[in-house]
Amino acid sequence: MAIIDGLNKVFESKIRLGIMSVLVANGSADFATLKSLLELTDGNLASHTRSLEEAGYLRCEKKFVGRKPNTTYIVTESGRNAFAAHIDAMERFLKECRG
Amino acid sequence: MAIIDGLNKVFESKIRLGIMSVLVANGSADFATLKSLLELTDGNLASHTRSLEEAGYLRCEKKFVGRKPNTTYIVTESGRNAFAAHIDAMERFLKECRG
Repeated sequence: MAIIDGLNKVFESKIRLGIMSVLVANGSADFATLKSLLELTDGNLASHTRSLEEAGYLRCEKKFVGRKPNTTYIVTESGRNAFAAHIDAMERFLKECRG
Repeated sequence: MAIIDGLNKVFESKIRLGIMSVLVANGSADFATLKSLLELTDGNLASHTRSLEEAGYLRCEKKFVGRKPNTTYIVTESGRNAFAAHIDAMERFLKECRG
């Protein structure tokens, strides 16, 4: 069905849309920042970032800040391209709905 | 997170977006039409229409056409309103992403 072709199943979740929009705008974000922006539990955020990592749309860097572990998520080029294509598909969908 | 507030979890699935866009444009559609437009299996379509029915966004009418059972899906007023609100939220999301 042309109107929904191009919508990416990986981005069906609004939480993943939120994560990707932060990463695309800023290049990267750490776990605590995403958790607070998106108001998520640790488990919920970890599960969505894992899905995005498995899709190749972000990579993560784990390091210690003092004695505390810290994870930073970095959008990949493939992630940027996939997100841009999804945004275009959303725009086409809206145009069809409005028209 | 303001950018994804207003996106309706019931419409996260692109299949449900497709079903609702057909119903909102036409008022109603029967099972065979939706199945062929969306290229779905019977089970997959039935599961998504059931979710939309449980949310109160569509109702279904079952009757016999000759000896064959036929189900027609009709969008409810609540479904029209929820879909319109979701479309508005998608538009705000896109504007933020573009800006």
